[in-house]
Amino acid sequence: MSKVNVSIIGSGNWGSAISKIVGINAKRLTEFEDRVYMYVYEEIINGKKLTEIINETHENVKYLPGYKLPDNVFATSDIVEAAKNADILIFVLPHQYISHIGSQLAGLIKPTSMALSLTKGFEIAEDGRIELISQVIRRHLNIPCAVLMGANLATEVAGEKFCETTIGVKDSKMAPILYNLFSTPNFRVVISDDADTVEMCGALKNIVATGAGFIDGLGYGDNTKAAVIRLGLMEMIKFGNVFYPGCQLATFFESCGIADLVTTCYGGRNRKAGEVFVKQGMSFTEIEKNILNGQNLQGPETAAEVYHMLKTKDMEDQFPMFTAVHKICIGELKPDHFIECVREHPEHM
Amino acid sequence: MSKVNVSIIGSGNWGSAISKIVGINAKRLTEFEDRVYMYVYEEIINGKKLTEIINETHENVKYLPGYKLPDNVFATSDIVEAAKNADILIFVLPHQYISHIGSQLAGLIKPTSMALSLTKGFEIAEDGRIELISQVIRRHLNIPCAVLMGANLATEVAGEKFCETTIGVKDSKMAPILYNLFSTPNFRVVISDDADTVEMCGALKNIVATGAGFIDGLGYGDNTKAAVIRLGLMEMIKFGNVFYPGCQLATFFESCGIADLVTTCYGGRNRKAGEVFVKQGMSFTEIEKNILNGQNLQGPETAAEVYHMLKTKDMEDQFPMFTAVHKICIGELKPDHFIECVREHPEHM
Repeated sequence: MSKVNVSIIGSGNWGSAISKIVGINAKRLTEFEDRVYMYVYEEIINGKKLTEIINETHENVKYLPGYKLPDNVFATSDIVEAAKNADILIFVLPHQYISHIGSQLAGLIKPTSMALSLTKGFEIAEDGRIELISQVIRRHLNIPCAVLMGANLATEVAGEKFCETTIGVKDSKMAPILYNLFSTPNFRVVISDDADTVEMCGALKNIVATGAGFIDGLGYGDNTKAAVIRLGLMEMIKFGNVFYPGCQLATFFESCGIADLVTTCYGGRNRKAGEVFVKQGMSFTEIEKNILNGQNLQGPETAAEVYHMLKTKDMEDQFPMFTAVHKICIGELKPDHFIECVREHPEHM
Repeated sequence: MSKVNVSIIGSGNWGSAISKIVGINAKRLTEFEDRVYMYVYEEIINGKKLTEIINETHENVKYLPGYKLPDNVFATSDIVEAAKNADILIFVLPHQYISHIGSQLAGLIKPTSMALSLTKGFEIAEDGRIELISQVIRRHLNIPCAVLMGANLATEVAGEKFCETTIGVKDSKMAPILYNLFSTPNFRVVISDDADTVEMCGALKNIVATGAGFIDGLGYGDNTKAAVIRLGLMEMIKFGNVFYPGCQLATFFESCGIADLVTTCYGGRNRKAGEVFVKQGMSFTEIEKNILNGQNLQGPETAAEVYHMLKTKDMEDQFPMFTAVHKICIGELKPDHFIECVREHPEHM
């Protein structure tokens, strides 16, 4: 039997962290080909290509400095080279780039391959509805696509601190190989068949975390933040019930649900950006550049995408927190308004 | 119609914070008698009685320094004077003292009065099962008893930072007056009829928070803590399903559930104690005295009570996190063991 080829499409903070796990498991387990390709968007760092630095020093000095990547992880800036022989394609790019990469790869990958998305967000479809990233990948590549989401701050995963994660996979035949590729003693995988809910949680939590950052920026404490987390979770569940029929409440109790929401609202970059936005009046673009070392934020864009759909369906009133985060992000409302939104939330009625 | 008399039994950090809300509402609303009695366990602070200091300066300098209490809150160290005319008795003592106070008051209160417990914990009954604090109060006083639990760190409530709370009340006739007594623009009350679950959440969260403190003490990060919070919540839900038939899953989504759990695992004193216990090897008694300014911890005792019942029923294996917290607290297991408990939790199987 031929070995399973694995490629990672993306090499930011999270892509680099996950390449440690995938690289080690690919080498350790006989079912996988040792070499793992990693597609890197080329940048020049101190006069040298980032791909060369990674392949020589086994460190992504830009997005995950201080952590060694396994030496069987091979960086390339050629997306086709990275993807063409893969049996498992792991997408871990900011969601803004998924459609572009998908259209580049269409027709150039193995038709028998499968995808796994670690990317959080939505894309606005032509009819005004929003598509999950896994749907965008399936549409472009015509292969099955599972998702991996959980309470997984990248630096802590790279530091091998114990955590849990959730793999959402509709086709149970895909589950064992994905489980084997990601499981380690410090990265505990739980499989869920409610894949759309798993993915939806990963996208929506960044909206809530942006709001939690507003609360921190406004000087409120842990009690108020807990209320934001709770009310945000209630909007996430409602969103699932309205837009993803079959959505199971139990999925919100997995790592992709409450656990990821909590972690993101305390330790994530979208929370931080929300706080800086309020305290320093910096734009999100400036925050990405000056505070986040070029990493993309997902919260404000996801809020815009969700708002677009809610407005199309005249449902803004039913999701006041998602709506308020968007309107504050674009400057239509002052950050102070967020506490009013929490205070008057329909969940209290 | 005669006015409703309110008494607060207890004056620690939380009792003092809640006396601000109750005092202001009692004065503001015509249905309540202005004067609110507050039972204070007498202590001498710099040569002066704490009750006198509170009545003269309107500040509990020991347990809530820096916040003014309403001047209609009257402190007394005479428990019978505090309680005898009350129509609403608010219990907010450490759970270790409830039975003693209950037996002191039996037969000396208005038979038409109602109680509300803000106290978190259990008491071990003669048959080895554990009683909720509201059950202990009902047993001693023979009056109905509701509960108030939520993501309510006392100092933030005193500082009028917005938060939510849950009042659990079995008899819906009691709900409106309790709602009125506690509601403010910054203290948002939601009523639940699933009172036992509301109360159980308030008790069990302190066990989980002690475990979250161990994780902090051992140097793990937000991902691991999120896993502890999630697995702790799963044990709380299981505990409800096993021991409180009729327990509703929706109640865990109220402020008393996930929100309080999150707040307590990040900002609460039981978390702090767990961290200090691991890092400095201090006993919990020393921590109460040296770090917490004499405030009582609930986590270790609640863990002991829950463990007692689990052992009686031979169910330790089904609640490994609750069991591990107890065994670590009493020194039977090393703190390092806690991460093994998280790693091998049956929720992952």
